[in-house]
Amino acid sequence: MLNGLSIIGHTVATAGNTALHSFSTVTGQQLAEKFYVATEAEIEQALKLAQEAAPVFAALTGEQRARFLETIATEILSIGSLLIERAHLETGLPEARLNGERDRTVNQLRLFAAVLREGSWVQAVIDTALPDRKPLPRTDLRKMQVALGPVAVFAASNFPFAFSTAGGDTAAALAAGCPVIVKAHGSHLGTNELIAQAVQRAAILCGMPNGVFSALVGEGAILGQQLAKDARIKAIGFTGSFKAGMSLYRTATTERKEPIPVYAEMSSINPVLLLPVALSTHADSIATQLAGSITLGVGQFCTNPGLLFVLESEQTAAFIEALTAAIQKTAAGYMLNKTICKSYYGNKSSLKTHPGITVLTEGEDLSEQYKGSAALFQVNAANFINDLVLQEEVFGPSSLVVRCSSKEELKRALEVLQGQLTGSVFAEQADLTEFSDAIAVMQSRVGRLIFNQVPTGVEVCHAMVHGGPFPATADARSTSVGADSIQRFVRPLCWQNCPEEILPAALKNSNPLQLMRKINGIYTRDAVDSLVVL
Amino acid sequence: MLNGLSIIGHTVATAGNTALHSFSTVTGQQLAEKFYVATEAEIEQALKLAQEAAPVFAALTGEQRARFLETIATEILSIGSLLIERAHLETGLPEARLNGERDRTVNQLRLFAAVLREGSWVQAVIDTALPDRKPLPRTDLRKMQVALGPVAVFAASNFPFAFSTAGGDTAAALAAGCPVIVKAHGSHLGTNELIAQAVQRAAILCGMPNGVFSALVGEGAILGQQLAKDARIKAIGFTGSFKAGMSLYRTATTERKEPIPVYAEMSSINPVLLLPVALSTHADSIATQLAGSITLGVGQFCTNPGLLFVLESEQTAAFIEALTAAIQKTAAGYMLNKTICKSYYGNKSSLKTHPGITVLTEGEDLSEQYKGSAALFQVNAANFINDLVLQEEVFGPSSLVVRCSSKEELKRALEVLQGQLTGSVFAEQADLTEFSDAIAVMQSRVGRLIFNQVPTGVEVCHAMVHGGPFPATADARSTSVGADSIQRFVRPLCWQNCPEEILPAALKNSNPLQLMRKINGIYTRDAVDSLVVL
Repeated sequence: MLNGLSIIGHTVATAGNTALHSFSTVTGQQLAEKFYVATEAEIEQALKLAQEAAPVFAALTGEQRARFLETIATEILSIGSLLIERAHLETGLPEARLNGERDRTVNQLRLFAAVLREGSWVQAVIDTALPDRKPLPRTDLRKMQVALGPVAVFAASNFPFAFSTAGGDTAAALAAGCPVIVKAHGSHLGTNELIAQAVQRAAILCGMPNGVFSALVGEGAILGQQLAKDARIKAIGFTGSFKAGMSLYRTATTERKEPIPVYAEMSSINPVLLLPVALSTHADSIATQLAGSITLGVGQFCTNPGLLFVLESEQTAAFIEALTAAIQKTAAGYMLNKTICKSYYGNKSSLKTHPGITVLTEGEDLSEQYKGSAALFQVNAANFINDLVLQEEVFGPSSLVVRCSSKEELKRALEVLQGQLTGSVFAEQADLTEFSDAIAVMQSRVGRLIFNQVPTGVEVCHAMVHGGPFPATADARSTSVGADSIQRFVRPLCWQNCPEEILPAALKNSNPLQLMRKINGIYTRDAVDSLVVL
Repeated sequence: MLNGLSIIGHTVATAGNTALHSFSTVTGQQLAEKFYVATEAEIEQALKLAQEAAPVFAALTGEQRARFLETIATEILSIGSLLIERAHLETGLPEARLNGERDRTVNQLRLFAAVLREGSWVQAVIDTALPDRKPLPRTDLRKMQVALGPVAVFAASNFPFAFSTAGGDTAAALAAGCPVIVKAHGSHLGTNELIAQAVQRAAILCGMPNGVFSALVGEGAILGQQLAKDARIKAIGFTGSFKAGMSLYRTATTERKEPIPVYAEMSSINPVLLLPVALSTHADSIATQLAGSITLGVGQFCTNPGLLFVLESEQTAAFIEALTAAIQKTAAGYMLNKTICKSYYGNKSSLKTHPGITVLTEGEDLSEQYKGSAALFQVNAANFINDLVLQEEVFGPSSLVVRCSSKEELKRALEVLQGQLTGSVFAEQADLTEFSDAIAVMQSRVGRLIFNQVPTGVEVCHAMVHGGPFPATADARSTSVGADSIQRFVRPLCWQNCPEEILPAALKNSNPLQLMRKINGIYTRDAVDSLVVL
């Protein structure tokens, strides 16, 4: 049930007077429900509780935190159709997509539960004592990953479940043993409250410490900055615009005494390299796949393919024709919110009049209905190479074909690329050999290198990297999706010559948790005692 | 042979006109040899070569890079006594210590060679395709760590070998596949040149790409800042003062378009918790160990124990007496350089006159001989708790006893501690139980928690953490010593649906490198093909 209140630990925030509303691009109107902005004292309360909860929560067993995550999943499912209906109203996303995203979010929570039960994510490393070593003995040293402390999570506009209140950042931080304070996204405040209530119920049911989770309503410039500046916050997870991400990055690295890690996923145009033999063999199929990817979810994916590199040829001309036709057939869809819709048409209109740009197709302006219609533009590589503006993201169902006159020009065009979440290569065997240099350049710019598939669709699994060099993210050393995203919220701690009885279970001689550990440089699940001393 | 020239890839820098000199605290004089400051064009040349070398170097096999590291080790050893003699003149450190440090540095290079040969450091993770999965199939996803690109390494004053030209940062970055540009430390320019020549010889002998290593002479404020600002530098390794470290951090995070990781090890006072039963049982032995640790290397270690927490009692009084006596017996030694010597006496003199501070012992002022004499001060916890100035590092053989009147006050005193590289606990079984809260607080502040041993002495092994919360380092998520320090200079890259023939060896189905990999969530050295599909 929607009360319009921030969730603060086991309670709710009732002191606020200012109210925000979500706007529905589906109804074209502001939704009736009021959501009260958390007061400064309420934000302070959430921070205080999070700090107090941190050591208690971090000290729980993996099994205890796994059950908490699973209970969150169950509680989210128990909201039923109310959640999907509200999210549809608040984001314009169709119900089928929202059902899929909800299930993916639930599975993500369960994946982390499985990771916690298996337990090896703590990366236990043990070097046993060598008392007789010359010239000096070696003492017993053991290390593992421990939680960083409270994490501020900034919900994303475009994934109301998977990258929001109980999305990837929250699941990973809770799994790591870090309390979470979510800043709800202004576009889907009702969705946030329903999910936040589910997390709160799970926290109470599982006996989690009060303050392990809060979800606050407020403006980014006030609430967001207050969280980023606060000494009790030890890391930030963010998905959104380059501008907002860099503002948080600057606050977290320069306006605090102690700088903290900022995992901001910001801006990516996801280049696609379309190589000649592949194009001559599968032009129609590739055109259909790409048109689907460019317009999927009205183009509002961080992995939306925004740049298509081709070499001039007859097949290329035919391919572009097929792609243009496929895009023209796509129906327009509701965009996420007013701002995104306005920016989409504004950015497209700037691009269209930019020197060197030709329009291949552009749907009619449906901004009054808050719908995004698809567009395809083209430019010569010579223009692209000298114009960084053409690498600015147009968030929505739009893409830019970059026509290269030679293999050398193609390579130069790839060399000017900024960092990206993904890069896709459509190639047959002969292309892979012929264009290995170009593929190597693309590899150096991306977090995920994809072959003969479109970039949209991010699997939640162990091997996923959803990240990449700046400006795709503020920290290329991590992934925000998949099991290893838990590693963003930990630091290594070493115990030297520590009495066995107070060592964490993960580091005890007998290996009671049955972890894969590295002992004297060798991976093993064996107990320390059972090993031959090296 | 000393030529006074910066090493730039396979050549030397001969254009500089301005010369620097090392100063010897042993002779009390400036040393005769001139070291020419690299010109802006020469710095540019080193950067250009490093960028060009980066993809070539990263693509070498682990075996190739392992041989390079081993050859560096051999070449360093081949310099023989000349290296030790020069380092002694330039740092004042005794020859026995320098021999030990040289051997440790050589072993460090060999450890990384072993890590590269074993190969699992790349953290290969594979999720195989599930074409029949409902509702959607899963594609093949594989990830591993790849090199970040050129790294700037800033040599430290206090470890002319282990944390300098071919020290831990350089070894880890080269192992990861990143070219290195060293900024030589002004204190030991001759030592730098001898080592840099050894690395250059090894690079040429092993056929490494030109530019894989350069070592430049210049001032921090000019050369250092130019390196930190340059877009081609992708990470920074630094060991030194808080001020210099934070200056690099600010440049790297705010004065570049693309912010980069800064691994700055800066400032730590390494608290020691002396618990009652331990003190009553082993007062003399602990006093002897601690006095040795406080004065080891004239106190010029980043792990020097600068704060000693005790609870008031008769045993404590006796212990302090024993510690004072042991410190009084220590001979003064040459300090590393003029600046450090001047700062030591200056900081000590400020501390002495600070409100609440009592002098337990203080050796005579030997600053005219550039020698540091040991000192021990004390303060009541009540003063300590309210005075952050008392947490400023006094770099040298000095320590501060913090006397706590109760268990509660002890805990409060630990709670105000800033981040530290290490925290040591001297405790018997009964202490561990009685003071578990205090130990937990200390644990939350440190990178390494030590029991019944002194903090000086950092083992180069797999389980070491030489790092810790700010301000001990700028990035608590890593270690600068040990095998895992290689992880500072890499990022994860994912290959999706990639043809087997162009996958990196570490990710190929057959597992030709015999790595420990995670396949579908399970650790194994088996080939992908041999696994039952899950």
